[in-house]
Amino acid sequence: MKVVSLDRPLAYDGLQLATAFMDRHAPGEDDALVLFEGEADVSVERLVDREDAEAGAFIYSPRMAHVVGEHRGIELPEAVWRQRLLVRLAAEWIAKRCGVAVDVAGNDLFVRGGKLSVSVATRSPRGCLMHLGVNVETEGAPVRAAGLRDLRIPPREFLQALGRLYAEEVASVAHAVGKVRPVT
Amino acid sequence: MKVVSLDRPLAYDGLQLATAFMDRHAPGEDDALVLFEGEADVSVERLVDREDAEAGAFIYSPRMAHVVGEHRGIELPEAVWRQRLLVRLAAEWIAKRCGVAVDVAGNDLFVRGGKLSVSVATRSPRGCLMHLGVNVETEGAPVRAAGLRDLRIPPREFLQALGRLYAEEVASVAHAVGKVRPVT
Amino acid sequence: MKVVSLDRPLAYDGLQLATAFMDRHAPGEDDALVLFEGEADVSVERLVDREDAEAGAFIYSPRMAHVVGEHRGIELPEAVWRQRLLVRLAAEWIAKRCGVAVDVAGNDLFVRGGKLSVSVATRSPRGCLMHLGVNVETEGAPVRAAGLRDLRIPPREFLQALGRLYAEEVASVAHAVGKVRPVT
Amino acid sequence: MKVVSLDRPLAYDGLQLATAFMDRHAPGEDDALVLFEGEADVSVERLVDREDAEAGAFIYSPRMAHVVGEHRGIELPEAVWRQRLLVRLAAEWIAKRCGVAVDVAGNDLFVRGGKLSVSVATRSPRGCLMHLGVNVETEGAPVRAAGLRDLRIPPREFLQALGRLYAEEVASVAHAVGKVRPVT
Amino acid sequence: MKVVSLDRPLAYDGLQLATAFMDRHAPGEDDALVLFEGEADVSVERLVDREDAEAGAFIYSPRMAHVVGEHRGIELPEAVWRQRLLVRLAAEWIAKRCGVAVDVAGNDLFVRGGKLSVSVATRSPRGCLMHLGVNVETEGAPVRAAGLRDLRIPPREFLQALGRLYAEEVASVAHAVGKVRPVT
Amino acid sequence: MKVVSLDRPLAYDGLQLATAFMDRHAPGEDDALVLFEGEADVSVERLVDREDAEAGAFIYSPRMAHVVGEHRGIELPEAVWRQRLLVRLAAEWIAKRCGVAVDVAGNDLFVRGGKLSVSVATRSPRGCLMHLGVNVETEGAPVRAAGLRDLRIPPREFLQALGRLYAEEVASVAHAVGKVRPVT
Repeated sequence: MKVVSLDRPLAYDGLQLATAFMDRHAPGEDDALVLFEGEADVSVERLVDREDAEAGAFIYSPRMAHVVGEHRGIELPEAVWRQRLLVRLAAEWIAKRCGVAVDVAGNDLFVRGGKLSVSVATRSPRGCLMHLGVNVETEGAPVRAAGLRDLRIPPREFLQALGRLYAEEVASVAHAVGKVRPVT
Repeated sequence: MKVVSLDRPLAYDGLQLATAFMDRHAPGEDDALVLFEGEADVSVERLVDREDAEAGAFIYSPRMAHVVGEHRGIELPEAVWRQRLLVRLAAEWIAKRCGVAVDVAGNDLFVRGGKLSVSVATRSPRGCLMHLGVNVETEGAPVRAAGLRDLRIPPREFLQALGRLYAEEVASVAHAVGKVRPVT
Repeated sequence: MKVVSLDRPLAYDGLQLATAFMDRHAPGEDDALVLFEGEADVSVERLVDREDAEAGAFIYSPRMAHVVGEHRGIELPEAVWRQRLLVRLAAEWIAKRCGVAVDVAGNDLFVRGGKLSVSVATRSPRGCLMHLGVNVETEGAPVRAAGLRDLRIPPREFLQALGRLYAEEVASVAHAVGKVRPVT
Repeated sequence: MKVVSLDRPLAYDGLQLATAFMDRHAPGEDDALVLFEGEADVSVERLVDREDAEAGAFIYSPRMAHVVGEHRGIELPEAVWRQRLLVRLAAEWIAKRCGVAVDVAGNDLFVRGGKLSVSVATRSPRGCLMHLGVNVETEGAPVRAAGLRDLRIPPREFLQALGRLYAEEVASVAHAVGKVRPVT
Repeated sequence: MKVVSLDRPLAYDGLQLATAFMDRHAPGEDDALVLFEGEADVSVERLVDREDAEAGAFIYSPRMAHVVGEHRGIELPEAVWRQRLLVRLAAEWIAKRCGVAVDVAGNDLFVRGGKLSVSVATRSPRGCLMHLGVNVETEGAPVRAAGLRDLRIPPREFLQALGRLYAEEVASVAHAVGKVRPVT
Repeated sequence: MKVVSLDRPLAYDGLQLATAFMDRHAPGEDDALVLFEGEADVSVERLVDREDAEAGAFIYSPRMAHVVGEHRGIELPEAVWRQRLLVRLAAEWIAKRCGVAVDVAGNDLFVRGGKLSVSVATRSPRGCLMHLGVNVETEGAPVRAAGLRDLRIPPREFLQALGRLYAEEVASVAHAVGKVRPVT
């Protein structure tokens, strides 16, 4: 799994959850993660989650640490289980890094009751795409929020660590799949 | 997802990782978890993990808390991701329950350098089966081990909690799969 | 499989063959049938059957007994075989209930040369959806039609019976899938 | 779908539910049905149905009309739905042919409380195989049985009709799968 | 696999890579090839290849020999491997027919540095579709091109031969798939 | 795709078409080819091809150039199409290298009427495995044979070239799969 870090800030408005985005920033045929920082501003009509869209929700943060990932040739249920792991890896790293309790509820991370993250996984033409955004700053967020700045975690350090942990997990799962005999 | 707790102790010797075991203890057509306590004694020729078998390993614990689970109609990669989540749910619950650090490495849990668990997932005729065994007592274990008894965690309480958390995660993933629109 | 009966009449114009319709009337993660009565009025541009649409067909009945069903995570060929079973269960119940001969041709039911039903199955974002509409009244139908009213069958009784029979068949098939050994 | 009628009687002992049997009698790459008459004598250890095998059941009839079918490249759930259709086509043809009521319960046909048939579907290396056996004579059957002889139905006529009806249904389903647009 | 030759010239503008085109010219439920000759004129917005479209490419030839093929129920990776075989069968036949060296690069054929062909394979609602167009005449082509006319190959002879070779390969692969035992 | 060349000769007796062989010589989670030279001696009971086994065939050559390849997570039809490409890449390279005509018939290569190769592809626990063996020397072969020695092709040069060409084709197909939009 390729892990690509973008040097310059990039705003996330929902259009980055796309095959073309992966082709631009992680060209080649490998599954990949693209890591970057930037504003998040996803209007209701670009939301991928139909429930949130029907509820009129939107996403805003002046600065988030973003992970956009692609897995080719897999179905959505497997992608959602991978996404759940990605989210828990983030929670565990943050908790260990600064000693704070990080609560996980489905796809969401919370610190002291403040929402730390947004995440979604969905189908794309050649497999599945997922996004995890973790607040760095929280001014203007539509709900009570928590952010990496308050936790004194440099976003770049967080993204590098998470990219590495997830890539290791992907390799480890592939290894586990390949070494068992079937049962009856 | 059905969760069934067995009242009486049952030894795990590897033959419980089988469709027939699920049919006996969780009859019906639902995906299911069967929870029980008992000795674990899996000889090398019954190991499902080919690497461990080639290394001549075996499994022994005088008492473990066991989870055997079945998911029908899924392929092994998805099953291994589910298993990874199950293992992390166990780690998080134990850590929160008794304030100890629980390290996760792939499928394995460690407490203070002692191995707390064994786990495997593999293919079966109608889907995939997985096993997670968490040491209660550790005398005679082939490696340095940790157990729930030393952590003062009643195994029944652990199994009930883990069964509930995993069933909730399964329902939550199914919900997430059903509410997104595809992207391009 | 969940079976939900709607108390109030609901017109069917084609937009009910949709994931959002299932989420509204049968929320949760289970496969489901929604049963209701109401006018059927599907214009040519909403037809799911491309052949019928190209032929300029439309669907009209002042009152039909409707079944809209969803099966998640299956491919269309399996869904069409399930639909064929649903249609035959309807035929057999009607024939037994009032002693009339009900002819089945593909997805269609006929009584004394009159068309009794319309049906279609197709892909949806999370699996497949199917619709079966059985005429209650037939005034204004675009072809020679038969209806439950002339057969003196209360539509509610028909829908309840069909929902129960199909749910039993679904459970019975799942059971059969889970109890066989493979052959060579 | 190829339909092949064997001219000479052939006993069914379970070994005919095999890829090699299809290759011998219906060579080529098409899905196929092989139709034949002969004794049925399947001992408990050759039963494909694990429940029946555990119950110590066996199959015996001095003469049955047999259908062995293969569908390549499909999974077992779809094969069981196809098998259910095959069984219902048999029931409907017999009922219409001689005016008797034929009851269907899952895979089984009954006439006046006597069991008329046995059937199973399962996985094979290149897809799925199914067997339907309909009693012609019933002496020595292990349960109360009914047979085509008592219904005055020539087994050859029955097999030809069923082969034709099922092949038509297969073609009709393929046609239906290919002519619909997806919905949302 | 059905192979259909159209008698009259037909221009290819990209809209022929469609399920409806196959239904019109090769009705029925079989996988099929449709062979025809005619102008090729595909504007950038009808290109299926996103890279070519982003590069502003288009396709033009005053006369090409066209193959449009459909394989139902397969995924795109398998379709691209089939397409690669189709392209190599074309290369080998042309090379043997007129003693010229035909170079293959991915999907493309070259003769003496001139591009002889265009080809693409992609997903469709019921499987995958592919197109291979081989230049007959080359005036006005957007790149340096080669054509069958210069090679003194009658396009009809080429299409008939290629259709036959590919249909034989498809049958031969199906045969190979059906005759092997699995390994460990 | 990883390509591994073994330095020392290794006899092929059929047991090399196995997951364990790939794990030993190409450890890791990637799809891989293992290239080696050595005697080929496969007795009838180790043949994977059921037709050949029933015909009592066996494989013998005093020295072959061998390719054993694994593709994880794919079904057999796709594997056979990949194998067909591998075989044609070998044919084209040999023909170009020494100006001889190489005929391809299904999986088999012939030079001047002598059989140059054996090949098979089949299912394995985690995907598919394939073998291609090309004669170097031909004394003792059970059929009229051709070999690389007579063609003055060093087997190592052949294996290196074929490994590279096939790995490039695999990458090129993955690229093609990822860059097309679906059609209707």
